[in-house]
Amino acid sequence: MGNGLDKRIERFMNWMKREQIELALITTPTNVYYLTGFYTNPHERFMGLFLTVTGDVFLIVPELDKNQAIEKSGLSSVLGYSDSEGPDFIIEKMVQVNRNTRMGIEQGNINYKTVLWLQRLLQVENFLDLESGFNELRLIKDETEIKFLQEAAHFADRAVEIGIQSLKIGKSELEIIAEIEYQLKKQGIERMSFDTMVLTGKKSALPHGKPGKDKIQEGDFVLFDLGVVFNGYCSDISRTVVMGTPSEEQRKIYTIVKQAQQMAINAVKPNISIKQIDLSARNYISKAGYGEYFIHRTGHGLGLDVHEYPSIHEKNEGILKEGMVFTIEPGIYVPQVGGVRIEDDVIVTRNGVRVLTSFTKELIQIGM
Amino acid sequence: MGNGLDKRIERFMNWMKREQIELALITTPTNVYYLTGFYTNPHERFMGLFLTVTGDVFLIVPELDKNQAIEKSGLSSVLGYSDSEGPDFIIEKMVQVNRNTRMGIEQGNINYKTVLWLQRLLQVENFLDLESGFNELRLIKDETEIKFLQEAAHFADRAVEIGIQSLKIGKSELEIIAEIEYQLKKQGIERMSFDTMVLTGKKSALPHGKPGKDKIQEGDFVLFDLGVVFNGYCSDISRTVVMGTPSEEQRKIYTIVKQAQQMAINAVKPNISIKQIDLSARNYISKAGYGEYFIHRTGHGLGLDVHEYPSIHEKNEGILKEGMVFTIEPGIYVPQVGGVRIEDDVIVTRNGVRVLTSFTKELIQIGM
Repeated sequence: MGNGLDKRIERFMNWMKREQIELALITTPTNVYYLTGFYTNPHERFMGLFLTVTGDVFLIVPELDKNQAIEKSGLSSVLGYSDSEGPDFIIEKMVQVNRNTRMGIEQGNINYKTVLWLQRLLQVENFLDLESGFNELRLIKDETEIKFLQEAAHFADRAVEIGIQSLKIGKSELEIIAEIEYQLKKQGIERMSFDTMVLTGKKSALPHGKPGKDKIQEGDFVLFDLGVVFNGYCSDISRTVVMGTPSEEQRKIYTIVKQAQQMAINAVKPNISIKQIDLSARNYISKAGYGEYFIHRTGHGLGLDVHEYPSIHEKNEGILKEGMVFTIEPGIYVPQVGGVRIEDDVIVTRNGVRVLTSFTKELIQIGM
Repeated sequence: MGNGLDKRIERFMNWMKREQIELALITTPTNVYYLTGFYTNPHERFMGLFLTVTGDVFLIVPELDKNQAIEKSGLSSVLGYSDSEGPDFIIEKMVQVNRNTRMGIEQGNINYKTVLWLQRLLQVENFLDLESGFNELRLIKDETEIKFLQEAAHFADRAVEIGIQSLKIGKSELEIIAEIEYQLKKQGIERMSFDTMVLTGKKSALPHGKPGKDKIQEGDFVLFDLGVVFNGYCSDISRTVVMGTPSEEQRKIYTIVKQAQQMAINAVKPNISIKQIDLSARNYISKAGYGEYFIHRTGHGLGLDVHEYPSIHEKNEGILKEGMVFTIEPGIYVPQVGGVRIEDDVIVTRNGVRVLTSFTKELIQIGM
């Protein structure tokens, strides 16, 4: 395998040992990728990585993924099954369990039908949850991961730049999105981290707004929120610009968000409690009189998933550690006026913080 | 509600009666949309439509979806919950069950963690599966659905046209995809039915190939497989063209697939067995000597999901009925040479068939 992947499996097995889990079945594509380097989404077909606490590792995949799985994972034990036979026979042959075996699955990512099938096949009655093991492992990013996250962040910067360059009075939100994704695809990007968001005017005040045919007008805030996937790793950036000259209130709101976001970034360093980052931004916005309009947490972890641990909210008593990667994205949303959100991706370093996204945060006035 | 949606709920309740299911909890976004007209994907948040066999209907949604849910569904009972309180309290208050209640869920679409939570909350021990109820209901499309499917098919035709117009020696597969999706987004299309596929040269012989930076070369087959979502309904079309003058073998393969596809279309009418459609194409291809290169079923149902019932394969003894909608997409894939697939969406009419997609199936030679 190489690339430190053996080590990831070893660390996961150590976690299993601590939790007294004898057998783990991993079916979530990102977790299989995390441990093996092989990614596929087999949709309705079964794919499973089996690990035993005694050190056995084998991967079961649909026959048509087998060659790729061997090549990418370097695992010595990859087993393929055809559509006509299904995976049942292989699993029964490979897996030795009884009804009391302490077996773990990813409870939040496996459907009930699959669980019922496993119960019939293996006679195991209860399944433990592997989620906290993966949360723990994936929380701290290693060098390879940071390289990919940095690259994803570069493309996010580029995406915002494309979007801003294509802004024009009368164009629709969907047209701007089309332009961004077109240019990125041409540069070889296959996938965005989530549905690209461009919201204009009053809609910028809706954190869950849906882009549509709404046309950009003079005086609008235009809010971008988007991300790019690079080698499986996600970026996530938000920037807000104004069409023409900002009103006094627009300028005021923008300046508060920008300052709040910077204060949260400045707070980042190892060994503080996570809530302090949220509170740095939140207290500043509250003191400026806009507390009621900052209606979400300050950020979320980032990695193979665009939302993962840690969650940057005001009640998270957890401790910040070197190698954690997350977003910092305070916002102010004034109904009927508009919203501003500024978001960067950051990594906790030994002594402080490194910001992965780098697109300017000065207030850009389009057409001025 | 109107738009015949009351009727859909009524029909579903009749199915529940027949199956002796007292209470149904529906959480799949497309099924909730099918029964209510309201669509949202609440991701990790809970959304559930509860139906009792005695006629009660209520929908539980995250607070931020509530207004939209009321507006779109017209249901008199829509209940919202905040993130801080969660849905538990509302469910406990609204749902009267005991451990023997015959309660149904969508086993294949609900994760195990949610099931464990429901078991704790409601004390129900076993959950029945609602899947066959939805398969039965959604199998026959009504007038509104057919209108949307037809519109989705028009956009699929348009997408292929855009793709073909942008073909050029030296461009990559990803560039062509970018062009297609850019133009569609500009026309207001928000979503494709699945990842758009453009495969060139030898890669056209891989039914599960992944588009990349491969460049289009003289003499290549270029295979398009894509679909568009319109008002929630999916289309799915494939066309194959050749760059320049086709070789004799390319022309031969193309002609066989085209003829086989037409024969399968011609076979469609109510009250025949479904396998006959598959066999019409399969037997023709086999007699032409390419049977071993036609390695998948002839088609699949189409609707709110891009793969649904009926499955058009050679062992499906089911009976074709008026209002069924599916794809017809035979193909021949010769390793190291290339592949051809031609796919249309069709609906079974009272007397025969209507083809929803209409882009030409003559062999197009690019640059000739």
